[in-house]
Amino acid sequence: MSLTNASPADAASEAKSASHVLAALPASARNDALTAIHAALGVARDDILAANARDLELARKAAADGQLSSALVSRLDLGKKGKWEDMLKGILDVRDLEDPVGKVTLRTRLDEGLDLERVTCPIGVLLIIFEARPEVIANIASLAIKSGNAAILKGGKESTESFVAIARVISAALAATQVPNAAVQLVTTRDVIPQLLALDALIDLVIPRGSNELVRYIKNNTRIPVLGHADGLCSVYLEASADPAMAADVVVDAKTSYPAACNAVETLLVEEAALAAPFPAVAAALLARGVELRCDAASKAALLAPSSGIPADRLAALVRDARPADFDTEHLSLTLTVGAVPDLAAAAAHINAHGSKHTDVILTADADRAERFMSAVDAAGTYWNASTRFADGMRYGFGTEVGISTNKIHSRGPVGLEGLMIYKYKIRGHGQVSAVYGEGEGKKRFLHQSLPL
Amino acid sequence: MSLTNASPADAASEAKSASHVLAALPASARNDALTAIHAALGVARDDILAANARDLELARKAAADGQLSSALVSRLDLGKKGKWEDMLKGILDVRDLEDPVGKVTLRTRLDEGLDLERVTCPIGVLLIIFEARPEVIANIASLAIKSGNAAILKGGKESTESFVAIARVISAALAATQVPNAAVQLVTTRDVIPQLLALDALIDLVIPRGSNELVRYIKNNTRIPVLGHADGLCSVYLEASADPAMAADVVVDAKTSYPAACNAVETLLVEEAALAAPFPAVAAALLARGVELRCDAASKAALLAPSSGIPADRLAALVRDARPADFDTEHLSLTLTVGAVPDLAAAAAHINAHGSKHTDVILTADADRAERFMSAVDAAGTYWNASTRFADGMRYGFGTEVGISTNKIHSRGPVGLEGLMIYKYKIRGHGQVSAVYGEGEGKKRFLHQSLPL
Repeated sequence: MSLTNASPADAASEAKSASHVLAALPASARNDALTAIHAALGVARDDILAANARDLELARKAAADGQLSSALVSRLDLGKKGKWEDMLKGILDVRDLEDPVGKVTLRTRLDEGLDLERVTCPIGVLLIIFEARPEVIANIASLAIKSGNAAILKGGKESTESFVAIARVISAALAATQVPNAAVQLVTTRDVIPQLLALDALIDLVIPRGSNELVRYIKNNTRIPVLGHADGLCSVYLEASADPAMAADVVVDAKTSYPAACNAVETLLVEEAALAAPFPAVAAALLARGVELRCDAASKAALLAPSSGIPADRLAALVRDARPADFDTEHLSLTLTVGAVPDLAAAAAHINAHGSKHTDVILTADADRAERFMSAVDAAGTYWNASTRFADGMRYGFGTEVGISTNKIHSRGPVGLEGLMIYKYKIRGHGQVSAVYGEGEGKKRFLHQSLPL
Repeated sequence: MSLTNASPADAASEAKSASHVLAALPASARNDALTAIHAALGVARDDILAANARDLELARKAAADGQLSSALVSRLDLGKKGKWEDMLKGILDVRDLEDPVGKVTLRTRLDEGLDLERVTCPIGVLLIIFEARPEVIANIASLAIKSGNAAILKGGKESTESFVAIARVISAALAATQVPNAAVQLVTTRDVIPQLLALDALIDLVIPRGSNELVRYIKNNTRIPVLGHADGLCSVYLEASADPAMAADVVVDAKTSYPAACNAVETLLVEEAALAAPFPAVAAALLARGVELRCDAASKAALLAPSSGIPADRLAALVRDARPADFDTEHLSLTLTVGAVPDLAAAAAHINAHGSKHTDVILTADADRAERFMSAVDAAGTYWNASTRFADGMRYGFGTEVGISTNKIHSRGPVGLEGLMIYKYKIRGHGQVSAVYGEGEGKKRFLHQSLPL
């Protein structure tokens, strides 16, 4: 890793050259580099925590002046119980994942002695822009090295001292390994970001981890492909046949277990036939957890009906009229938009028009209708009778999560190491030429025989 | 298919809605639509050929005035021997390919009764811009319907009458099928292209098929991902250990079997140790086929040496000095740039700096060095002892070719139907919630058990 003072174009150009070296290294060399980084960080613990303390001091002052949130200050603190140990363990966890490089995914005998193979390989150079979380730099450096990609990293400015200290240690550790130093580069000033975003000939993929605003700014200001999601507007569609207790459990989890997460539910669509039941049971459970419901006329009427059994004071406190904008809003808080729809087709059409293609759920007892919903809704995740909150790389069993993508190409949903890979085709021949193959007379035919992987 | 007079935004919006219907159709419904299109085109043969004759008449006049190349006129002609039949057969060929929709590529038991599945699904809406080749519209409409994607098509203006006639027939045929009419839309005026390229919320992928200029214009004027290649600068690296006759055969095929193709070789890099042999044998074979060699000093000296055995008149006629720009030029003609490099690493570095990441070849008798080259060169195809011209979807056995991609994400190399697919994650549960799972005490652990596909 180098702390680059080079121009952005030079830094990216060096990263590109380093990516070619890194791509050809065996798994053992990449894993050895992670072992070396882990050991070096362990030795340098005190220096890094001292640098982190300097970041913290500045941040606490800024927070006292009201310029920084206390949540951000808390996230900065590498000395918090378990955080340092988790950071170090994370490096070894990534090291011990299956090697994503060089997996053969297709093998075809084109002709005798002429074999085609499709093999996974790294994408090249990643530009990763993330928040002021010092532990993330070790995690991202590990992911890049493990996947054979070079990376240019830019972290939130409030954590600059910590980043620089960690980068120095990683850089020194890499010097004794086969991974080139320029394979991981740290950029510390925000003003180079627009210049980096213009380098589409050198940088192959941008991964922004952070606020919606950050992701949207990046998507609007680069021709480089961006992997990520600006919004997480997840919906749950509730059918009349759904078990009331099951439905209440799922919606409460989806809304309240981490309301600020991108995989939290923001809109509840209620089948008209479900307004009398099980909707009131679901609403009652949400209201009991302090969730504000922004209801359309039909769903509000269902709750105000005496048959709903919900106490009037609770309705008065937490049930509001939905404005049209609520159906396009990622609340990220204990607020849920609620609307009635005539049927499954209308629910899917609503989600396809208003959702963010992240994760959407149907709650129903009917398997056929569940399958129909899961096919019709265009999203990275479509679930039947499970919480939206399962949309997560660790929960999916990927061992790590690079980010969550709502893109329509390459990678979708929680992205693990696989999302940092592309493939190349290799042919091993014996001097074959193309001109002798064809359909005409006297031409050779291809075998196109599928070989075992 | 509709011949759209709607605004680009309305057309794209209708295509998006249609894509949601199409994505949920079973394979049988998509295949039936292709059968119907095939039958309807067969019936309408005379009308379409009459429309094509009108295109041809205009084009011949333009060619006589020197405004159009005769090659373009020839490509326009649907009445040419076998072309109509090939177009119709192509529809059934695509229909009979394996269904790319709904393939399960990952299956994980997260917990008892909570299964995760990754399933292939269509990308959504494709914008396909292509040349004045009337048969292409039937091919592309088939690919879109087969893959469950909606498509907006814009063909070269010289073939407008043919396109309109074919589109009318396809549209009428689709009316009797489950595929919505708006799933395939034809745009006939070039002025709407910039407007379509701005619709990144509605169009998911642009596929330009045509000139380098067209592809470059599109890449520079849209935020929508573009699948394609602007350049095809393929290289061959010749080592001293390569068999001379084998090397000559491969390079001659790569250069001369279709010089205007993107997978033709443009640069020959010669290991310094190979300059005395086998390079002269390879050069002699190329010169005998009329190939002009643009040589650097070292390679030129090797050819001018009496030991090369190449007649002086042939050298005088076809051997020229390479200018630096030649090493970055896609000649697309019987011209080849030739340069000497000290070793494999220099060859790979040269190709990574000057190539277009399309297809590059090493000619050598050494398997270890071949593997090193194929890893080190960053290209969609890296071959050992085989012609660059094998880089082709039909030759790879994909059954069709949507295009060739030099992108670093999603799809690379010859792209078949698979390149028009993405995936979604489905979870089928029984009301599970996320909050009960975790590392802490009293939390449930995920099983993460891989299930057979």
